[in-house]
Amino acid sequence: MLEHGGRLRAASLRFGIPLADWLDLSTGIAPYGWSLPDIPPAAWTRLPEQDDGLESAACDYYGVDSLLPVAGSQAAIQALPRLRRNARVGLFAPAYAEHAAAWSREGHHLLTIGEVDIERELERLDVLLLVNPNNPTGRRFAPEQLLAWHARLAARGGWLLVDEAFIDCTPQHSLAAYSERPGLIVLRSFGKFFGLAGIRLGFVLAQQGLLERLAELLGPWTVSGPARAVATALLQDQAGQRVQRQRLLVDGERLGELLREHGLPPSGGCALFHWIACERAAGLHDFLAGHGILTRLFDNPTSLRFGLPADEPGWQRLELALQVFTKESA
Amino acid sequence: MLEHGGRLRAASLRFGIPLADWLDLSTGIAPYGWSLPDIPPAAWTRLPEQDDGLESAACDYYGVDSLLPVAGSQAAIQALPRLRRNARVGLFAPAYAEHAAAWSREGHHLLTIGEVDIERELERLDVLLLVNPNNPTGRRFAPEQLLAWHARLAARGGWLLVDEAFIDCTPQHSLAAYSERPGLIVLRSFGKFFGLAGIRLGFVLAQQGLLERLAELLGPWTVSGPARAVATALLQDQAGQRVQRQRLLVDGERLGELLREHGLPPSGGCALFHWIACERAAGLHDFLAGHGILTRLFDNPTSLRFGLPADEPGWQRLELALQVFTKESA
Repeated sequence: MLEHGGRLRAASLRFGIPLADWLDLSTGIAPYGWSLPDIPPAAWTRLPEQDDGLESAACDYYGVDSLLPVAGSQAAIQALPRLRRNARVGLFAPAYAEHAAAWSREGHHLLTIGEVDIERELERLDVLLLVNPNNPTGRRFAPEQLLAWHARLAARGGWLLVDEAFIDCTPQHSLAAYSERPGLIVLRSFGKFFGLAGIRLGFVLAQQGLLERLAELLGPWTVSGPARAVATALLQDQAGQRVQRQRLLVDGERLGELLREHGLPPSGGCALFHWIACERAAGLHDFLAGHGILTRLFDNPTSLRFGLPADEPGWQRLELALQVFTKESA
Repeated sequence: MLEHGGRLRAASLRFGIPLADWLDLSTGIAPYGWSLPDIPPAAWTRLPEQDDGLESAACDYYGVDSLLPVAGSQAAIQALPRLRRNARVGLFAPAYAEHAAAWSREGHHLLTIGEVDIERELERLDVLLLVNPNNPTGRRFAPEQLLAWHARLAARGGWLLVDEAFIDCTPQHSLAAYSERPGLIVLRSFGKFFGLAGIRLGFVLAQQGLLERLAELLGPWTVSGPARAVATALLQDQAGQRVQRQRLLVDGERLGELLREHGLPPSGGCALFHWIACERAAGLHDFLAGHGILTRLFDNPTSLRFGLPADEPGWQRLELALQVFTKESA
């Protein structure tokens, strides 16, 4: 299993700080969200059924005619490489590591490519895979650029696979509206924007035929009844979504500003996280962890990802720790 | 996708009876269970963590030292065939159809075998797969018999795969206690006995090495946070489990008796369902559906599975419908 953010129990053991005393900034998940709607008892007691309203609520939210709910976009990440054989897969890197692991596991040929190489490598690829905005770097790709790459790939039967896990605050950058084009696959995460990472729900947006093949691989009843009920309500709550989007955008700006003020200008980011690539990343990670603040450390390049604090005490705690770090390392 | 029980919406459309007016006996899921424990908000908002108590509660309940929680035993059914190549797989049939579909999908060679053939075929098999008690026939295999078959398979690197989805009322028949033996894999369903089919939770009991390979295929965070929290509490509720087991056993007997009284002696069954193989199955299915009672019809052999009514009005409604059927078909 790969290393991920959110492993608070492991951090609690390692740094000897009780679970309840941590400020967890190690994920890019919205730290606040909705009060949960009532869940009908039948959502727990009965097998989930497909025509319960989730699919249509999600189609409205994403602006598409068809999609496949999956038990977290992770489930799609694991399964999509099984729909091709012996593909040359270009991964824009550094990025969410589960993509590379999944394509390798299925025996595909992986090329890790930087941005400047995409144009040159594209003709040799069967699949181009990128995260937009990218995790952890925050790099954004313009839809026009992505569609141009997609057209070249699709002309040869190739795929453009775009993981839009962090795009809900900037839906104007999404390729959702184009996802019925052959060879374009868009992954969306439900839990990150809606602040419900435990729900295990994501969506695959693609041509109907591909969705059917994927559904066959994943089998029936992949998403729990309570998840379906909660998501159906939240996907319809447009007013709540506007509030959430605005709040995350403001907090994302605030986080970037806070880091800059303490001599740690983000190398990139989006509403849900900021990312700092610097030599001091490992030291800063351990310093913050010693103060009960968990961030996510990456190697290659050495870098740190900060998620958003949930509330004012969290912001103050982060600011105070950064002040001490700045002073001590001055 | 294969046909399954629990598809009340489809039945509602087909027979023109509103959703709320049905008595659904089409699954083998306990129709009553627990009042849900409080779910901590973090179960919804945070990524599920492995060391939250679910695994240890489940190990206690099943009497094992290691297991893997999965998003319904269906998730394991889909994935297990990917852990072998070109196996000769004997399926005891008729049985839950998803097993055959999953092994076929991965290119294995399937033999559907009846009970009398198992002894003869065993030497030619790499994998013997059966459901105990079997769904829908209710056939039970004695643990000693299964362990003897397992020993012969394991000696050649083969597997015995036992789906114990319906065994919780008769745990004395389970192979759970032996599941660390190489080549023995036991699947357990959480939702059926606990009456929570929407929760999507099951467990794989097997040798640690096999569990690790399976976990790698399935990826991280397969089970939702709320499911983990609810199941952890219910798996520890031994008093509640005793009440549930007793109630299901009594109701299972009552269902068998009711069918016998109306000239429909079950061909087999267990606490959670009874099964009638007879020429009249299709006619009886449609007659009951016309009265808003959904059962599960099988072909090959033509047969009908009845789950348990949830309450006294349900029992009376079923009895009345059977009385009318008996009179009309006399």
